[in-house]
Amino acid sequence: MRDAPFTTDELTCDDFLGGRARVWQPRNGYRAGTDPVLLAAAVTAKPGQTVLELGCGGGPALVCLGTRVPGLHLTGVELQPGYADLARRNLAENALDGTIETADLTALPGHVRQVQFDHVFANPPYFQASTRKGATAADREIALAGQTPLAQWVEIAAKRLAPGGTATFIQRAERLPELLTHFTAHLGSVELLPLAPRPNRPPRLILLRGRRAGRAPFRFHAPLILHRATDHQPDANPYSAPVNAVMRDAAALPFPDDKTPL
Amino acid sequence: MRDAPFTTDELTCDDFLGGRARVWQPRNGYRAGTDPVLLAAAVTAKPGQTVLELGCGGGPALVCLGTRVPGLHLTGVELQPGYADLARRNLAENALDGTIETADLTALPGHVRQVQFDHVFANPPYFQASTRKGATAADREIALAGQTPLAQWVEIAAKRLAPGGTATFIQRAERLPELLTHFTAHLGSVELLPLAPRPNRPPRLILLRGRRAGRAPFRFHAPLILHRATDHQPDANPYSAPVNAVMRDAAALPFPDDKTPL
Repeated sequence: MRDAPFTTDELTCDDFLGGRARVWQPRNGYRAGTDPVLLAAAVTAKPGQTVLELGCGGGPALVCLGTRVPGLHLTGVELQPGYADLARRNLAENALDGTIETADLTALPGHVRQVQFDHVFANPPYFQASTRKGATAADREIALAGQTPLAQWVEIAAKRLAPGGTATFIQRAERLPELLTHFTAHLGSVELLPLAPRPNRPPRLILLRGRRAGRAPFRFHAPLILHRATDHQPDANPYSAPVNAVMRDAAALPFPDDKTPL
Repeated sequence: MRDAPFTTDELTCDDFLGGRARVWQPRNGYRAGTDPVLLAAAVTAKPGQTVLELGCGGGPALVCLGTRVPGLHLTGVELQPGYADLARRNLAENALDGTIETADLTALPGHVRQVQFDHVFANPPYFQASTRKGATAADREIALAGQTPLAQWVEIAAKRLAPGGTATFIQRAERLPELLTHFTAHLGSVELLPLAPRPNRPPRLILLRGRRAGRAPFRFHAPLILHRATDHQPDANPYSAPVNAVMRDAAALPFPDDKTPL
């Protein structure tokens, strides 16, 4: 658990979205890769809407979403005070309005529980605490292997949504059965977008979206390929066109047939 | 419900597996497409093992599996007496040993319940009876929209397996959440192989495999592409190489990393 604020010595400041956003991150703690950027790009928020991120860490996804879609009401919930503090700093330095609540997501403050959000999103820990051994960095460990079951993340996301609002999660492909079971228990109109590292490779990550009170059948989309095949340049690792647009140009990552990609 | 045996006038006799098998099918009832052939090809049976198909219809999958893998002990369960009769005829005319039980899968005969099978497989009805209207052909309707919930198909398959035995199901992609929930409730080492009609198209079907008492994590494979892209020949519909090998040359359809494809 990281209680104390990070000192500047402990942090790096990194470019996101082709330099449109700058995000402070702990040098040795949990550091954002592409995952929170893709997650934020998949949230179908429109200007003026309310969005909530569960477990926002230092806020990279909130910053990316707020940078892409102006005029959002951003709320983040983060258990670890040091990361919550960092998220506040990152919102402020990117000139974004928002509120970061230092709280366990299973004990949200009353004023958060009174809001019905247009969108809730999350990048829950990829491992279950009980399945990992030898935690060396306690704060990174909480980000990677939380104590809260995935079932609760989904249930709480669903509860905080306005009817018709969307929940968007990113998670390891290995946990698809668990996540899909909970999504279909609490949400409707569920859509699965697998994320594969290269063409014809198994997906390593999944994006899952559901809608509160949605009634459309489940949709299984073709995998999104993250990197172009580079047989001739083994050291190169170029993003595919849609992912490059997300990472470098702050584009949305619409699911197939999304009507209003921003 | 089809009680009476089909007369030869009501049937066609069709080539399967490049002519290695011949299967009688009702002209106007449920007719096998590629689905039961792919299903049978995905069952990792070895000579001498016991296999059970739940809801075998006229037996095309049993015939395909028995033709590919010699020396299997084939058992099929079929609710509709007319189709069960047809399955017996198809096994006999393809010189395959096997037993077809005319029974509801929720009320299997005692001697079937005493066997622990090495492999159980099924191509359950693709629609739920309650969601379809205007049934015109009652027997076809039972094959397309059964009364038995998918949960029971999976539970019964799992119960009939020996420890380490595999359950293999083919189903519409739209029912992945439901099927995956039940697979992970009753089986382990679950693997998902999506079947996409063409490259970069969403999967329309899924193959799901689980293992009784399996303990490996869930695996999400890259989609198997059924047809080659044919932008320049819009009327052509050639199978991809691995599917052509299954359909024309009686090859197995191994999941990635299967160690002993036959």
